[in-house]
Amino acid sequence: MREQYREELEDINSCLVEMANSVGSAMSKATTALLDADVALADLVIAGDEQIDAARESIEQRCFTLLARQQPVATDLRTITTAMRIVSDLERMGDLAAHVAKLARMRFPDHAVPQEVRPIFLEAGHVAESLVTKTATVIAKLDVEAAAQLEAEDDLMDQLHRQLFRELLSKDWPHGMEAAIDVTLLGRYYERFADHAVSVARRVVYLVTGEREMHASHV
Amino acid sequence: MREQYREELEDINSCLVEMANSVGSAMSKATTALLDADVALADLVIAGDEQIDAARESIEQRCFTLLARQQPVATDLRTITTAMRIVSDLERMGDLAAHVAKLARMRFPDHAVPQEVRPIFLEAGHVAESLVTKTATVIAKLDVEAAAQLEAEDDLMDQLHRQLFRELLSKDWPHGMEAAIDVTLLGRYYERFADHAVSVARRVVYLVTGEREMHASHV
Repeated sequence: MREQYREELEDINSCLVEMANSVGSAMSKATTALLDADVALADLVIAGDEQIDAARESIEQRCFTLLARQQPVATDLRTITTAMRIVSDLERMGDLAAHVAKLARMRFPDHAVPQEVRPIFLEAGHVAESLVTKTATVIAKLDVEAAAQLEAEDDLMDQLHRQLFRELLSKDWPHGMEAAIDVTLLGRYYERFADHAVSVARRVVYLVTGEREMHASHV
Repeated sequence: MREQYREELEDINSCLVEMANSVGSAMSKATTALLDADVALADLVIAGDEQIDAARESIEQRCFTLLARQQPVATDLRTITTAMRIVSDLERMGDLAAHVAKLARMRFPDHAVPQEVRPIFLEAGHVAESLVTKTATVIAKLDVEAAAQLEAEDDLMDQLHRQLFRELLSKDWPHGMEAAIDVTLLGRYYERFADHAVSVARRVVYLVTGEREMHASHV
């Protein structure tokens, strides 16, 4: 019984890693859909969000069942409650990828993102992808070092976000209000995506070290 | 022992209700700070967010201790895991109130919100307050009826959000890009605040009825 229980815990962990990879792939596709005005790809991301939601339900249910049947204490209990929180961050990241895709879809056949800010979104997409890849590693290996690197990349995302505002506020923004609203919201989606990735990493660090030192003033 | 356990569960529930009220009060003050450019009030909301975060930690810890010591099953277990999720929605609502307050502070002594859209934010503030009051009732009384009313009010918030975009996109938006960005982000904060209130209500409904029928396509 104990053996089975270990296996189940490990399997839940693998599912979290898989879910992180799905979410990363969703954001990556969403960024391409956005930059290429690729509506088919956007649709794929939007449809795929259901699978991410289903993965959340499934993992939550398995955690719940473990709690009910095994009545774990101490570290095992904390591992399961942490998994339940991580899964909700990951689901939210999937929603944000879908938001990006929906915006690309809404403006099709136009590009939602004007030329001047394309490089920023391209980079934001790369940072998002790299963040979520590291997050998956942190979950898979309970790697506290990798979690620290995540924080640095999150700072990069914040810089990109500020750069976006500078572009919007520059005198020669010729793209009108609709594009400005789109860009503002898109910037927020990428920033939140990064925040959730960092939040997942912090949860793992807390689980491993019992320290919340990385819990800085992120918004 | 069993008696103590019941009392602890009820006490956690009271803390959730209290936290919902704090979060409602924070958003209400933040709205006033925004509309009156009242920086002292904004500071109060920003400082108060720490107490909301502390409430979250405390409630989470108590839930965790209950899980570890009492090893509940079935409905009791579900009640506790639901409380852990609700507390994270409520904390996020507190963050969003603080975001509104920070924006009011950033633009002080100017008003962040131009005259034309003041009525929309005034109303959004009222809807937010009403939503969170109903949310508190849903938690306190496990009132499934009240939860249904929440959905209607959330629709109202969505309408206000669309109205905001119409104002921004109207030909005579004379307030420039900075105000447009502020208004776009503020609209998003109120909308997310409402979404979280609805999410809390849905969690309670699911706990009581075991049905996720209200789990519509909210974003």
